[in-house]
Amino acid sequence: MQAASLDRTFHALSDPTRRAMVQRLARGPASVSELARPLSISLPAVMQHLQVLEASGIVKSEKVGRVRTCSVEPKVLSQAERWIADRRDQWERKLDRLGEYLEATASGNDNEEDEGNAK
Amino acid sequence: MQAASLDRTFHALSDPTRRAMVQRLARGPASVSELARPLSISLPAVMQHLQVLEASGIVKSEKVGRVRTCSVEPKVLSQAERWIADRRDQWERKLDRLGEYLEATASGNDNEEDEGNAK
Repeated sequence: MQAASLDRTFHALSDPTRRAMVQRLARGPASVSELARPLSISLPAVMQHLQVLEASGIVKSEKVGRVRTCSVEPKVLSQAERWIADRRDQWERKLDRLGEYLEATASGNDNEEDEGNAK
Repeated sequence: MQAASLDRTFHALSDPTRRAMVQRLARGPASVSELARPLSISLPAVMQHLQVLEASGIVKSEKVGRVRTCSVEPKVLSQAERWIADRRDQWERKLDRLGEYLEATASGNDNEEDEGNAK
């Protein structure tokens, strides 16, 4: 995934109003006025947030007649999720290797002690 | 997870330099100068990015003597990952239900056609 695309995706998700819009759209497509209803902000403000979400690719919208219907594009969300998961996996594998190393070192010490005790 | 915490986490991840720092730290702890080395930016700029990462909780650092060592805090990454995954799951379950509904409707139509054809 392009860095610029991740920039836009994470930026889009860094605002609570935009996350509320994504949360609503995860339940299914909605018109702009349906999206605006539970949010206590003006329609132009909703449109601005929608533009940020569309620029990131998280949301797409289509205008039919006078109604613009918005929906979630799960692929972009998956890519952001994957970026985080890959870093977390890498870190956890690192910790596992450290654990194995410490275990190997500890059992090495145990053997030495056993040898010391044996006579 | 608090909304303000998700704001800070996604904001921290929306910058390519900060993501490069997280990517480096996912391989294991590093000093600030180790973090700065592959990045073509000044040390003060690295320190500023580090502050944003620490404010989000993604990275923690500890100063021993003159060396500040940074490491990843995987819990905060997991929380951001979970937020995205939950939205994506919700959307996919919605699609599954829609699929089942369409299938049920289609097989309903098939039955009607069968009845029409049978004689």
